[in-house]
Amino acid sequence: MIRPGVRYDPTPGDEDECSELLGYNEDWTGRYRGSSPLVLKPANTAEVSSILRYCHDNCIGVVTRGGNTGLCGGATPLRDEIVLSLEGMNNIYGLDEHSGILTCDSGVILENLHAYSNERGYLFPLDIGAKGTCQIGGNVSTNAGGQYFFRFGGLHGTVMGLEVVLPDGRVLHLNMDNVDDDGTVQRTKRISTHRKDNTGYDLKHIFIGAEGTIGVVTKVAIACPALPTSKNATLLVCDSYCDVLKVMATAKVELGEILSAMEFMDHNTLKLVQAHGFGGNGDGPRLLRDMLQSDPSKQESDRSRQLYLLVETQGSNSADDASKMDNFLAHLYDSGTIRNGFLAQDSRQMTEMWRIRESCNPSVLRAGCVYKFDVSVPIEDYMTIAREVEGRLFASVKHVDPIVCVWGHVNDGNAHINIVTPGRFETESAIEETIETIVFDEVLKHSGSISAEHGIGQKKNEALGRLKDENIMVIMAQIKALFDPHGIMNPGKYLPNKYQHNMCK
Amino acid sequence: MIRPGVRYDPTPGDEDECSELLGYNEDWTGRYRGSSPLVLKPANTAEVSSILRYCHDNCIGVVTRGGNTGLCGGATPLRDEIVLSLEGMNNIYGLDEHSGILTCDSGVILENLHAYSNERGYLFPLDIGAKGTCQIGGNVSTNAGGQYFFRFGGLHGTVMGLEVVLPDGRVLHLNMDNVDDDGTVQRTKRISTHRKDNTGYDLKHIFIGAEGTIGVVTKVAIACPALPTSKNATLLVCDSYCDVLKVMATAKVELGEILSAMEFMDHNTLKLVQAHGFGGNGDGPRLLRDMLQSDPSKQESDRSRQLYLLVETQGSNSADDASKMDNFLAHLYDSGTIRNGFLAQDSRQMTEMWRIRESCNPSVLRAGCVYKFDVSVPIEDYMTIAREVEGRLFASVKHVDPIVCVWGHVNDGNAHINIVTPGRFETESAIEETIETIVFDEVLKHSGSISAEHGIGQKKNEALGRLKDENIMVIMAQIKALFDPHGIMNPGKYLPNKYQHNMCK
Repeated sequence: MIRPGVRYDPTPGDEDECSELLGYNEDWTGRYRGSSPLVLKPANTAEVSSILRYCHDNCIGVVTRGGNTGLCGGATPLRDEIVLSLEGMNNIYGLDEHSGILTCDSGVILENLHAYSNERGYLFPLDIGAKGTCQIGGNVSTNAGGQYFFRFGGLHGTVMGLEVVLPDGRVLHLNMDNVDDDGTVQRTKRISTHRKDNTGYDLKHIFIGAEGTIGVVTKVAIACPALPTSKNATLLVCDSYCDVLKVMATAKVELGEILSAMEFMDHNTLKLVQAHGFGGNGDGPRLLRDMLQSDPSKQESDRSRQLYLLVETQGSNSADDASKMDNFLAHLYDSGTIRNGFLAQDSRQMTEMWRIRESCNPSVLRAGCVYKFDVSVPIEDYMTIAREVEGRLFASVKHVDPIVCVWGHVNDGNAHINIVTPGRFETESAIEETIETIVFDEVLKHSGSISAEHGIGQKKNEALGRLKDENIMVIMAQIKALFDPHGIMNPGKYLPNKYQHNMCK
Repeated sequence: MIRPGVRYDPTPGDEDECSELLGYNEDWTGRYRGSSPLVLKPANTAEVSSILRYCHDNCIGVVTRGGNTGLCGGATPLRDEIVLSLEGMNNIYGLDEHSGILTCDSGVILENLHAYSNERGYLFPLDIGAKGTCQIGGNVSTNAGGQYFFRFGGLHGTVMGLEVVLPDGRVLHLNMDNVDDDGTVQRTKRISTHRKDNTGYDLKHIFIGAEGTIGVVTKVAIACPALPTSKNATLLVCDSYCDVLKVMATAKVELGEILSAMEFMDHNTLKLVQAHGFGGNGDGPRLLRDMLQSDPSKQESDRSRQLYLLVETQGSNSADDASKMDNFLAHLYDSGTIRNGFLAQDSRQMTEMWRIRESCNPSVLRAGCVYKFDVSVPIEDYMTIAREVEGRLFASVKHVDPIVCVWGHVNDGNAHINIVTPGRFETESAIEETIETIVFDEVLKHSGSISAEHGIGQKKNEALGRLKDENIMVIMAQIKALFDPHGIMNPGKYLPNKYQHNMCK
């Protein structure tokens, strides 16, 4: 029943298979690499169950793989674990027209869920830059956040049901009908999932963000809100973070329930976007240039403290929404809260604005070696922390000319702090350690979290062990042992080494 | 350090204390009664920790008590457990003006949190009928739902941080600063909680809805949305459930993001509200009469299939909202979807509309003996199930003249099915068993859930054991044993007997 998958033959063999296998052993950034000899591509839940039971019984490590868009190496083998790729499980079972609950397999690409729900008058409530490649199972397993978190809620709020396969092959239907008993999906049967289900410990939440360490998510049911029909976007230029806070407060009053995104970018970031992300003379590059030079009389050194916001609204009535946006902007201009503002005149310009925001990550990667952090901090300390990090970096690793770039979902307190060392393209572990110590130290000094939305994987598990309360770490290890007593699921990741249990010892 | 609390002295003693103790041994409906000899009222987390550690070490059962508004006897002792009342822990620590996150003790009464957040420009995202009495810790521990669930999300989405005391006295700070180490709350220090925190298994979700079986929730941090400044409400009369579905679809399009509640009531329910809930000639009674007799030419027997909806909007601009509501009603009239509609002209009328809705429960209780169910069902089957239950009741317990009353949060698929036997005021266990079998059977036939928002307590734990997947029950028992190895927390409830472990065996 198990498909043969891709097997690595260490003697020279099929070149294509070797190169395909390499793809499954490397993460997209090229930073993490494993040596798995086998990729399995199950077609349904029953096959996942058989695979896991076999691995459980024989103490074989398993790494579950989605769209390979993670940032912490969570879906890349550490050593020779089997790779379980869910790409072949990509059915969408339906969207209940009354409840708005969409049910699908884990391997469906996020963008396909956007299209499917939009066609039916609903909005899929998760949106992230990697939507064209990432899979919903990976999104759930990493508890992906993104720009709609503020308006439409996180996955703990929107995921209503899960189907999960445990390491020993048992299948749990958590607030979701079992329609897959015999291994053939009965696509004609409705899969029921409820918005409210208070029948015991809500186990599905343990799997949201568990990064494949206690089981494999095979089906997902997510509640979608009614599709907004009107969208507006504006790019704002502020002189100080104090003004950014005022924009946020004004948005709460003037935009109220239609505010759908508030994306922050600092000057360092947009300078790199200009240098590495946008060429030519289109709308996007022109807009970017105008923003960066909002006050032509200023020196560049004065402008370097300028901060930028992309504010988006989504609502159900274009006239009402336009008037709310006008009031919002008028209020900001009148109160001197913004230096400049650009209102998108059509959907093309809106797309260009989002293209600027989504170019932040690829642009810094092109600029040099990047030390990436994804932290939660108190909103009022958002830029203070970045400045403090900058100051300490200049004092300790000035020789690599570090540039501190900050962008992120400011109304969630979620800052993507990226330290760029221009012209260098290899990470240096001594520098990395210094930078990580400084960033985490500043974040924790302000009671922040060292992982807001990117997760743990193989990147932050040891830091977690050092920095998180031991009582919590002990319970995490007990949860891991409860679900995965042989320690076969994503071994060596998520938990620090001292809390990992050996396979079948 | 532990306050003496109220101790029951079996020899005649202080009459006031005895009567106070009785209050803690009985639930508000009078249905459940225990015989606890001791109520403890800790003042802070350190005291809760000391109490639990002592009980853990000495195998003493503990029932945590909030505002005594539960419907399943979850906070009433079964036998002689100690009652831990959190009423003395009622500090509100603050509401972060930027993130909207409010932090407070578990014993704060829900209505006080409404007032506190409203004064600061935020809406507390949970509202239930018992708000004047219930406590937020109880709300979290029962995963309370209520009318704002649809718009503002459930507690798994809005609760950002928890402080929890485990049975052995360990205190967990789950996405929440520890400010209480020495037993004196440092009220001057900000308590930080983040919207996004991806640092391991999200343990707080196991405690949401755990009904005090694995620990005691002592502090809560909840994210509040910006306070809507405009509110509208309308009462609609429909001839069929098919029309109710059309109203829901129209609301999605015309009201969009400002739809805040969609409350359903059937004719049987409103007849009992009229008979037992509303007297006199005020706005409420007049409105109720007009609704019930929307078509004076009809016979009462024809009217009995009429269905009623309370639709509420909340937004940030009164002119925009009024125009959306007008379009909504015009569309419903033009398409013949409603027989009649009443639009509240002022806040007084809006209050009267909600008073009708909130009278459903007390009115049926006054009408006779009530067998209460709180189920989730597919939205399209909402009334089908009620009719099927009605048919089967007439066939099996016709002699008690059962009246099937249905109301609830229809856009969540949450139906409060109440079987009323007029004139009888004592439950009969044979009848109860018959009714429960019929209701649960119909609900499960339609893939429903036997508890939508009221929880399990001592009412549904055995049914849970019969009806829920055994794989899930086994894991629930393992979770219970992991956190509460001596089985001291709310013993005998939540899990069916066969999954309970004896204290300190």
